[in-house]
Amino acid sequence: MIQLTRRYRFSASHRLHTDRLSENQNRELYGKCSNPYGHGHDYLIHVCVRGPVGPVSGRVADVAALDGLVRDQVLAAFDHKNLNVEIPALVPTTENLAFEIRNRLQRRWAEIFPGAWPKLQKIRIAETRRNAFEITDEEE
Amino acid sequence: MIQLTRRYRFSASHRLHTDRLSENQNRELYGKCSNPYGHGHDYLIHVCVRGPVGPVSGRVADVAALDGLVRDQVLAAFDHKNLNVEIPALVPTTENLAFEIRNRLQRRWAEIFPGAWPKLQKIRIAETRRNAFEITDEEE
Amino acid sequence: MIQLTRRYRFSASHRLHTDRLSENQNRELYGKCSNPYGHGHDYLIHVCVRGPVGPVSGRVADVAALDGLVRDQVLAAFDHKNLNVEIPALVPTTENLAFEIRNRLQRRWAEIFPGAWPKLQKIRIAETRRNAFEITDEEE
Amino acid sequence: MIQLTRRYRFSASHRLHTDRLSENQNRELYGKCSNPYGHGHDYLIHVCVRGPVGPVSGRVADVAALDGLVRDQVLAAFDHKNLNVEIPALVPTTENLAFEIRNRLQRRWAEIFPGAWPKLQKIRIAETRRNAFEITDEEE
Amino acid sequence: MIQLTRRYRFSASHRLHTDRLSENQNRELYGKCSNPYGHGHDYLIHVCVRGPVGPVSGRVADVAALDGLVRDQVLAAFDHKNLNVEIPALVPTTENLAFEIRNRLQRRWAEIFPGAWPKLQKIRIAETRRNAFEITDEEE
Amino acid sequence: MIQLTRRYRFSASHRLHTDRLSENQNRELYGKCSNPYGHGHDYLIHVCVRGPVGPVSGRVADVAALDGLVRDQVLAAFDHKNLNVEIPALVPTTENLAFEIRNRLQRRWAEIFPGAWPKLQKIRIAETRRNAFEITDEEE
Repeated sequence: MIQLTRRYRFSASHRLHTDRLSENQNRELYGKCSNPYGHGHDYLIHVCVRGPVGPVSGRVADVAALDGLVRDQVLAAFDHKNLNVEIPALVPTTENLAFEIRNRLQRRWAEIFPGAWPKLQKIRIAETRRNAFEITDEEE
Repeated sequence: MIQLTRRYRFSASHRLHTDRLSENQNRELYGKCSNPYGHGHDYLIHVCVRGPVGPVSGRVADVAALDGLVRDQVLAAFDHKNLNVEIPALVPTTENLAFEIRNRLQRRWAEIFPGAWPKLQKIRIAETRRNAFEITDEEE
Repeated sequence: MIQLTRRYRFSASHRLHTDRLSENQNRELYGKCSNPYGHGHDYLIHVCVRGPVGPVSGRVADVAALDGLVRDQVLAAFDHKNLNVEIPALVPTTENLAFEIRNRLQRRWAEIFPGAWPKLQKIRIAETRRNAFEITDEEE
Repeated sequence: MIQLTRRYRFSASHRLHTDRLSENQNRELYGKCSNPYGHGHDYLIHVCVRGPVGPVSGRVADVAALDGLVRDQVLAAFDHKNLNVEIPALVPTTENLAFEIRNRLQRRWAEIFPGAWPKLQKIRIAETRRNAFEITDEEE
Repeated sequence: MIQLTRRYRFSASHRLHTDRLSENQNRELYGKCSNPYGHGHDYLIHVCVRGPVGPVSGRVADVAALDGLVRDQVLAAFDHKNLNVEIPALVPTTENLAFEIRNRLQRRWAEIFPGAWPKLQKIRIAETRRNAFEITDEEE
Repeated sequence: MIQLTRRYRFSASHRLHTDRLSENQNRELYGKCSNPYGHGHDYLIHVCVRGPVGPVSGRVADVAALDGLVRDQVLAAFDHKNLNVEIPALVPTTENLAFEIRNRLQRRWAEIFPGAWPKLQKIRIAETRRNAFEITDEEE
């Protein structure tokens, strides 16, 4: 078994704010990230897939197929966009964004990778160099 | 003479759009950067100052004073903000932002550094790892 | 479950030397790191915490609280200090430093994070770009 | 238990091509990587070892011994070489290269580290910043 | 005046060898870089252009046009290629490669940028993180 | 003409303190950098040399000769050392260290590079990622 990690980037803006709290509670919870006019980041995503190496190809995954999936399901939706507009149901914290990205990839995974392997193992998203979030498939 | 380069960061959102052009012309000129809801970046600024080394201190500049100037004139205005709102007179291209930052530092420079040295020599601003802009004081 | 990794830095000096070995044995074991006048590094720490995402906040941890804990228990003690002076009981190898940092954070963890979550999952410390050490909570 | 990750680099060229497929199939499978004259990369390897910390030395592994093993078994064979010439039995995908490196280290591990610890836990190899491959010892 | 630096990458293999010297002289001059089967690198190019900022666009250069020029004249020729095959007239040292890239961009510059500005100011090419080469337009 | 920049690293400790000022003045001038037990850094040096490309070799400088000069004159003196002990005549600010390194290289330059070229053009030294200092040969 081998794991491939592939990196992608997108630039987006967001504002941290939930209607379930008051203005003051939002400011206390999210600090300057709740600025009403929003701010932005250059997000860095790592997608990790896991599987055996193909005996002829010597590869664990069709990288072009993975790139296409990430481009269509994630980058097309988020790059140069406002995350509050793109995912209106969620407060666009990086945590929620990580789950959203995982769900978007899993939704079409079986279509792109119809065999038993590779599996989507982990999503990592870094908002800045100081902060990164990771979700690992618990069954792995 | 020695040159000190000091690095700062801020996160902001912007939208590239000028009222002097039509919607279509904006889209053609700025591409996905003209998305009406904006998008964001983690900007990296390098401020370069130049001067002789103090014979007792062994330093070219009071770094705490420089940090204070950059924090008050630049980071406080731009970090976690929307650049279209902060600098309404300008299209917030990184080029215009570079000149705006240089002007904000020069406006208070003599107050913070009342002697002949150090001088503000260069401003560099990187929008992403692929793009950086630099303005050098031509008299240097 | 999601994991947050947050990065911190500090600069410190140390000398690798144990009184339990002779001068020659120290030199053989630690090489130029046993230089009697010491030398230094810019250490990079990653602190990983793990937990569920809060349903309202959309966050896994109060980042300001985590930053405060790391600042008070680790950075205040080690930044711009001599590690042989700060932790006299230990030879300041990066391995021993990793355990010391983990212990300092765990000692006050329940005070700062009184609920079941988040948990301290992993400490990573890099001495230079070529060398990093990691301790993972075995129960995780 | 603690894990040490140590980083190495080498530059090599390769061509992705298998005699088990036709020219057209090779081009479809490997794209521009199948260019007959080859191309190259600066590979980055991380070797992770795991074990307890020695009570006197405060170290998990003899780093000079590890460096010597990697230099003799891996870097001497691959640095500034053509991988198709060095490992003729394999298509030099990064996946196959990862297994080859793991095997070369394990073959001499017991000679260099005769005790129960440290163990070779993980090999990571990055072809570029966008692509990395990892093999973890499943028994760990 | 402002300077824009834009970054590009390509992977290629080469062998340092000149027919004007004997095998032994080649080995002495180029060391392991003269390995007959070649080796490779991930080259990083920075292209710097200089000019005034357009009063309406707020931009110094049409970045898409610059990217197209670099892609057509440089990346298409060198990415995933063998430099000895691509530039047979030259020993593919990074120095010679820098001049070759500058010449390829200048040959078509006036076609892509027909006005007085922007000018091609500097080419920087890094073979690895330890080595970079720069050519600056002397008239600037 | 082409410029080669080559990178080196060393780890060292220092304490900022001058006998020409009182304890209080030292603390005010140098802050936590005046801590009596010292602290350390991983310094990054860039050495820039400039010259024409040799018509046969295709190289601007004998890199092995440059590496030997830097190793003998700079790294051997400073790596894993205490800068206050190594350069007792100077307060080891990074500015003073830059001039010291330039002087050490120039002292033996003509011995190593007896021809007209290459010339030592610039020394750059970074104490951390946030701070870098540069001295350029004014005649260039």
